[in-house]
Amino acid sequence: MGERIVIALGGNALQSGNGPATAEAQLSVVKETCRYIAEISSRGYEIGIVHGNGPQVGRILLASETAKDVTPAMPFDVCGAMSQGYIGYHLQQALKRELSERNRNVPVVTVITQVAVDAGDPAFKNPTKPIGPFYTAEEAEKLKSEKGYVMKEDAGRGYRRVVPSPAPVKIMEIDSVRRLWDSTITISCGGGGIPVIEHPDGSLEGAEAVIDKDFAAELLAEMIDADILMILTEVEKVAVHFGKPNQEDLDSLTVERAKAYEKEGHFAAGSMLPKIQAAMKFVSKRPGKKSIITSLDKAVEALEGRTGTTIVFS
Amino acid sequence: MGERIVIALGGNALQSGNGPATAEAQLSVVKETCRYIAEISSRGYEIGIVHGNGPQVGRILLASETAKDVTPAMPFDVCGAMSQGYIGYHLQQALKRELSERNRNVPVVTVITQVAVDAGDPAFKNPTKPIGPFYTAEEAEKLKSEKGYVMKEDAGRGYRRVVPSPAPVKIMEIDSVRRLWDSTITISCGGGGIPVIEHPDGSLEGAEAVIDKDFAAELLAEMIDADILMILTEVEKVAVHFGKPNQEDLDSLTVERAKAYEKEGHFAAGSMLPKIQAAMKFVSKRPGKKSIITSLDKAVEALEGRTGTTIVFS
Repeated sequence: MGERIVIALGGNALQSGNGPATAEAQLSVVKETCRYIAEISSRGYEIGIVHGNGPQVGRILLASETAKDVTPAMPFDVCGAMSQGYIGYHLQQALKRELSERNRNVPVVTVITQVAVDAGDPAFKNPTKPIGPFYTAEEAEKLKSEKGYVMKEDAGRGYRRVVPSPAPVKIMEIDSVRRLWDSTITISCGGGGIPVIEHPDGSLEGAEAVIDKDFAAELLAEMIDADILMILTEVEKVAVHFGKPNQEDLDSLTVERAKAYEKEGHFAAGSMLPKIQAAMKFVSKRPGKKSIITSLDKAVEALEGRTGTTIVFS
Repeated sequence: MGERIVIALGGNALQSGNGPATAEAQLSVVKETCRYIAEISSRGYEIGIVHGNGPQVGRILLASETAKDVTPAMPFDVCGAMSQGYIGYHLQQALKRELSERNRNVPVVTVITQVAVDAGDPAFKNPTKPIGPFYTAEEAEKLKSEKGYVMKEDAGRGYRRVVPSPAPVKIMEIDSVRRLWDSTITISCGGGGIPVIEHPDGSLEGAEAVIDKDFAAELLAEMIDADILMILTEVEKVAVHFGKPNQEDLDSLTVERAKAYEKEGHFAAGSMLPKIQAAMKFVSKRPGKKSIITSLDKAVEALEGRTGTTIVFS
């Protein structure tokens, strides 16, 4: 049995920043992405995939809101479930293909995943995550009063709805992911999972929130006893003084060192910061295991210890 | 181990015909539906669920087409994948709840499912299945010439796009459904599955088509060696002379008898006919097993042999 890796795929692995944001364009990027993932699998690792969904769920919401006079708009949890179906379908189709080409006969499957969050999570008091379309000040006021949305002005581009970004506490479909893991590549917790609140009577209710996919991947890595949490992003290595003349790329980091850098403000909120935090959390909960942050095209090299930033407990 | 049942859920199990077609309204119908399904499971049967998606994928397509000047419209295969995420999420949330209330600790999970169809299927030469919104004659002409859609006039209500309805030949994620089956209630082949064409080189490509969910359920029943294919619909029993003074409800049917009735035109195309055909196919392929057609609220009674229509090979 190979080492177990949870791979968290960032937005650039799913959609190009250029050209029209069509499903066809996404599929073509996903095919490229899956070549790299198939390479990891063909090295004998047992892998599972967690992907982001920001642009995709944004477009689903935008279509839904735009068409609301023609067909009822979808709640945000349902938009998240739809994005899991959409992205998972593309990933499983493309990855299966790349595996076949490498004579690796591993099933690939998407599991629709609910992730419970705590109703008392402080994030619910301070929504920060912008979702969906931009609105005028007037429209924003209307949504505030009619639907109770929290609306924030976004860098001069108009108003957007913001939702809370609570921490994941429980992967509701973990049994199925575990059952499949040994034999199958699972795509789960897409977009961080469909956020749900678990009521005291055990019933679940969809929440209008966004779970960071890196934190969901971290929780999954804990739950399935992963050896490696691998967070794939746009850079080959984590850096301090990022983008400055004295930028320094890091080969490895202990939790203590990473925390010190975090305090010094080296990691951008909403970008490298959640990745570093997820990476630290995993090795803190599972000392002896490791987290790796690198880019998709360097993933295999990073697993061989030749590049990327490896985060260890100490 | 209990008997294995594949349950095919009709549209009325997911959405009320009355009131606005919101996701909230769907969830409330799904909760009711899941009470009946949980009752079946708590009798000790091993079950898997296949659901329809007609109204849901229709609304996803409608929203997507309506918003196409704001965000690119989604291809039909992607709309199908999204509907699997949407409906599966609701079903797994609601069913898990109903099972817990019965102290039955069975995982429930949705598997995004591609179902291969034959590119040479005669259905591709004769598209019959209407999907998405109604258009004017002028809009229909435009779609014909611009996108190559086949458009048909629909009972004086306008023009609609029609797509082929080919037969399912292979469930691409069958390994995962099998692996989960013993321990888990799987929701798979939603909407009949996302139709894909398998190219000679093994690659898959989404097809703009609709697979009948009863035929997909039949194929699944064959593949997982089900004991029973249970097709749930609006009527308690299959009838001949349906809706006429001499209507006769049927307790059981052999394939020979059913074929004779089919020839006499007793079963409505697009309604009871595909259900009867799927039921006949299953027992023809697996003589000794049985198919049952009944209504959701009579499912348990029908399994006990007290109502419904049972179809056997001979």
